[in-house]
Amino acid sequence: MFEHVKYPVELGADMDIACLLDILGNETRREILQMLTERRCYVSQISSELNVGQKAIIKHLEIMEQAGILEPHFEKIEKGRPRKYFNVSQNLVVEVNLFSGLFDMKIHSPSMEEEILEDFPRIKELALILRDREARDDRYMIDELRIIREELLTEKKRLSELKRVIDFLISKADSSIEDEEVRRRLRKELSVG
Amino acid sequence: MFEHVKYPVELGADMDIACLLDILGNETRREILQMLTERRCYVSQISSELNVGQKAIIKHLEIMEQAGILEPHFEKIEKGRPRKYFNVSQNLVVEVNLFSGLFDMKIHSPSMEEEILEDFPRIKELALILRDREARDDRYMIDELRIIREELLTEKKRLSELKRVIDFLISKADSSIEDEEVRRRLRKELSVG
Repeated sequence: MFEHVKYPVELGADMDIACLLDILGNETRREILQMLTERRCYVSQISSELNVGQKAIIKHLEIMEQAGILEPHFEKIEKGRPRKYFNVSQNLVVEVNLFSGLFDMKIHSPSMEEEILEDFPRIKELALILRDREARDDRYMIDELRIIREELLTEKKRLSELKRVIDFLISKADSSIEDEEVRRRLRKELSVG
Repeated sequence: MFEHVKYPVELGADMDIACLLDILGNETRREILQMLTERRCYVSQISSELNVGQKAIIKHLEIMEQAGILEPHFEKIEKGRPRKYFNVSQNLVVEVNLFSGLFDMKIHSPSMEEEILEDFPRIKELALILRDREARDDRYMIDELRIIREELLTEKKRLSELKRVIDFLISKADSSIEDEEVRRRLRKELSVG
């Protein structure tokens, strides 16, 4: 049950940002991913829900499976052959920065880097509670887990805000540096001329 | 000079994440964006550098201009009509989260949200130095600016790391909550049956 959610996740060596952007650039594929992040599905289910022919759906699923973002598995059904289900094989974040002077694309995967937590004691505390939770088999912790989850989401939002501000400050610094370089060049030209 | 770098940037109301992903999903368009983040270019320049026909390049540029990510302007040249140059019109970050249970796409723009800085005194300090720098016309601050820029980049890297850890912890909490829900359902079924 829910075993398809793997963590810690490792990015496949063959995971390629260009390939991933090609996949995300197609509306049907985005709709398929939307369905599959919600639940595992089989071909005819996707085909009828999205109102797209099975042949096309199979092609899209193949492309995404080859890229390493989908993972099929078979499940027995009451009658007939086992059914092939698809689900999202790993948690991914794709980030594209389109800045003046910088066009940069990254894929990363949620992961646990212990050292960084030394500077963020509250997050460390939450990490320890979650780890502790795994060791025990406490059946009544679901509400506590939900509260922790909310707090983590709030922290994530705060970080995104801070990142936007830092990006803004970097672009400001860049722009001042460029202005200053131009000014220096002009001064040099004037003094030579 | 460098006036095309605008800040603070505002996301165009018509900026659409699906449209942006369609753009980023095409290799030639990514190559064009790579060129244009480095410097402004005109059609035949892009066409010959990428070895792609001018007609196709014009089509790609049109699509990106309509999406609001490119901005053309005319520059006088020695002989003939003014030349049409393209550059990236605003700094953008595109983020796609592909998680079990969450498929979510965002565009944001670097921006200045003052409140968040109250919790991060060092970043606030850097922001104030940069602001101060704008008011003065100090011509010898370029090295200081470069040092600030480096520090901001380091901070950004640290934040990305922390964000990965938080994403990891959220997926862990999700997974524990799901397990617990399944366990509860099973207990209920067993007690009913």
